[in-house]
Amino acid sequence: MEQAGANRLARLQRLQAALGDGQLDFLLVSHLPNVCYLSGFTGSAAALLVGERGATLFTDGRYIAQAREEASNARVVIGTKAPAMAAAEWLAAHRKTAARPVLGVEAEWLSAAMRDRLASRLRGKVRVRSASPLVERARMIKDAYEIQRIREAVKLGASLFRVACAKIRPAVREVEVAAAMEYAARRKGAEGMSFSTIIAAGERSAVVHGRASAARIPRRGFVVCDFGVILAGYCSDRTRTVHVGKPSREARHFYRAVLEAQEAAIAAVRPGVSAAEVDAAARAVLRKWKLAKYFTHSTGHGLGLEIHEAPRLAAGQLQKLESGMVVTVEPGAYIPGKCGVRIEDVVVVTASGCEVLSPGEKELMVI
Amino acid sequence: MEQAGANRLARLQRLQAALGDGQLDFLLVSHLPNVCYLSGFTGSAAALLVGERGATLFTDGRYIAQAREEASNARVVIGTKAPAMAAAEWLAAHRKTAARPVLGVEAEWLSAAMRDRLASRLRGKVRVRSASPLVERARMIKDAYEIQRIREAVKLGASLFRVACAKIRPAVREVEVAAAMEYAARRKGAEGMSFSTIIAAGERSAVVHGRASAARIPRRGFVVCDFGVILAGYCSDRTRTVHVGKPSREARHFYRAVLEAQEAAIAAVRPGVSAAEVDAAARAVLRKWKLAKYFTHSTGHGLGLEIHEAPRLAAGQLQKLESGMVVTVEPGAYIPGKCGVRIEDVVVVTASGCEVLSPGEKELMVI
Repeated sequence: MEQAGANRLARLQRLQAALGDGQLDFLLVSHLPNVCYLSGFTGSAAALLVGERGATLFTDGRYIAQAREEASNARVVIGTKAPAMAAAEWLAAHRKTAARPVLGVEAEWLSAAMRDRLASRLRGKVRVRSASPLVERARMIKDAYEIQRIREAVKLGASLFRVACAKIRPAVREVEVAAAMEYAARRKGAEGMSFSTIIAAGERSAVVHGRASAARIPRRGFVVCDFGVILAGYCSDRTRTVHVGKPSREARHFYRAVLEAQEAAIAAVRPGVSAAEVDAAARAVLRKWKLAKYFTHSTGHGLGLEIHEAPRLAAGQLQKLESGMVVTVEPGAYIPGKCGVRIEDVVVVTASGCEVLSPGEKELMVI
Repeated sequence: MEQAGANRLARLQRLQAALGDGQLDFLLVSHLPNVCYLSGFTGSAAALLVGERGATLFTDGRYIAQAREEASNARVVIGTKAPAMAAAEWLAAHRKTAARPVLGVEAEWLSAAMRDRLASRLRGKVRVRSASPLVERARMIKDAYEIQRIREAVKLGASLFRVACAKIRPAVREVEVAAAMEYAARRKGAEGMSFSTIIAAGERSAVVHGRASAARIPRRGFVVCDFGVILAGYCSDRTRTVHVGKPSREARHFYRAVLEAQEAAIAAVRPGVSAAEVDAAARAVLRKWKLAKYFTHSTGHGLGLEIHEAPRLAAGQLQKLESGMVVTVEPGAYIPGKCGVRIEDVVVVTASGCEVLSPGEKELMVI
């Protein structure tokens, strides 16, 4: 983990350099994935106070040993209060000058109530400002170390599709398929799943977020399998849709349309293209097939330490793609009460286009 | 699920009645477990706008079918914006009178940035106020239906300890024990685990939140097993500590101290007692054994739809216990670098004391 530690130090230094541009003396990092990104700490209660002269991690008594072990580049302060409040009080006590320093907070992640409490506690001593999403912006571009971690997570995740295929049979419960996949993930070293495993069979394939239920797989129909793992802190995400029983001509067409849309979106991914353009590429194909109205979600999302992070591949998203971004590409089509198909891969934006991680087969598999 | 629907309607009506007391015309419920508590909707993006005349659920295109199926007592509005913002815009468009209604927001759960955006969007039309935690307060007292759900979750959760004991052997990896437990949970119908399973063996037993790792169980030492499931939306939580190999006299004493502390805390639970008094009861026993400084966390927490909810059993918590509250009682002691023990049960506060759910054996088990 030496490389990980060096990377985190570099991230912290870049953030420290950016504080001045944002006219901040300190940034209070309270979003836990951001805390982990900068410090390595993975506990469930923490705040990281970053100033020009260093970083201080605030957590509680459950994490004494873990904080000292994981947070190699930060001072550790163990307290009994909410970590953000502990950080504010520490700052009030330790400020060096008579001037009122400016403390940036992560307003997208800090609760309104906590910001009120911090502002009240620091009144007259520290000026509290909503900072721009400095850490999220940095996290959009993955370094080589992170891409390798995601590559490994996606590889492990992809291997679970074989487990699913071995289980999917008429009359088997969706949840049994999910259980087998999750058990395999754990045994292969995953910390857990990156979201509730979706196994949505038959009519339920039209339910976009159809978490595996007690419903039984019918004799004939699509089964959407959408699943991801967390491995060494990084998420994977993948969807494959199979067909149980002989697919009708209509079902084959439906699948073909979604696959073409997904391939068009992947082909659109390259530096300089906007997130909205990738989304539009998928939508254009489904429009051609007269299925655009059944594509009721966005085309993809960034992933890394979180299963959903910036950028979002959706209409209106002007963010330009850059080399090092990692996004899902996952168009789908869903006819309520009837059927649904989704196909998803994770891609890394490269200098000239993108690389699909663990590409694998995408032609319709019939079970 | 008829009973569930009737219960939710009653909860909604009680909340509607409370709006006036809080001098609110509307409450914007944005914390997802609160949305689920009131409406039954379990999707990952939602806001529920509650007014005197009814409730409206805002979600997005992924949840069209699911929202109509689950949210039986609310109008459903499907949008493309963030649900809280969609609710605010709907309110601005639908307000009936020239007067500026007062909209309460859940300031503990709404981000500071979203509150700023809502206030800006509604300026001059609707007054935005931080509401008191109306839904959390209601959720502290479980109805008979909820207690039954928790009872079932705890029963399933408790059954996993047998799975753990069958796996725990020297040289087995902690994560293999967790994987077997999680697989069993899924096969018995759990939606998932209520938190990352903790299997902390040998020296790692001193790490309070020692999530199951690749470390191997040593030939001799404690193994802390802290685990919970989610079943029909409700959480369980349980800790048992076993000893691999023959325990030393010192280890037996250490275990005995924690068990006495846990039993003293359970004996202290009854209506009218403060949360702090229960915590103090556990701490007093550990003080007697000269172990108080090794008890580095609080004694327990409420649980229900969330794994951690009000009340907290900790020093300084003045909240009085009431019949129908459900809390964990889980003192522990941890000697850094050496060993740790924690014992935890879920109890329901009754009219005269408390009932331990799925009590089971607590004497030190040697494997």
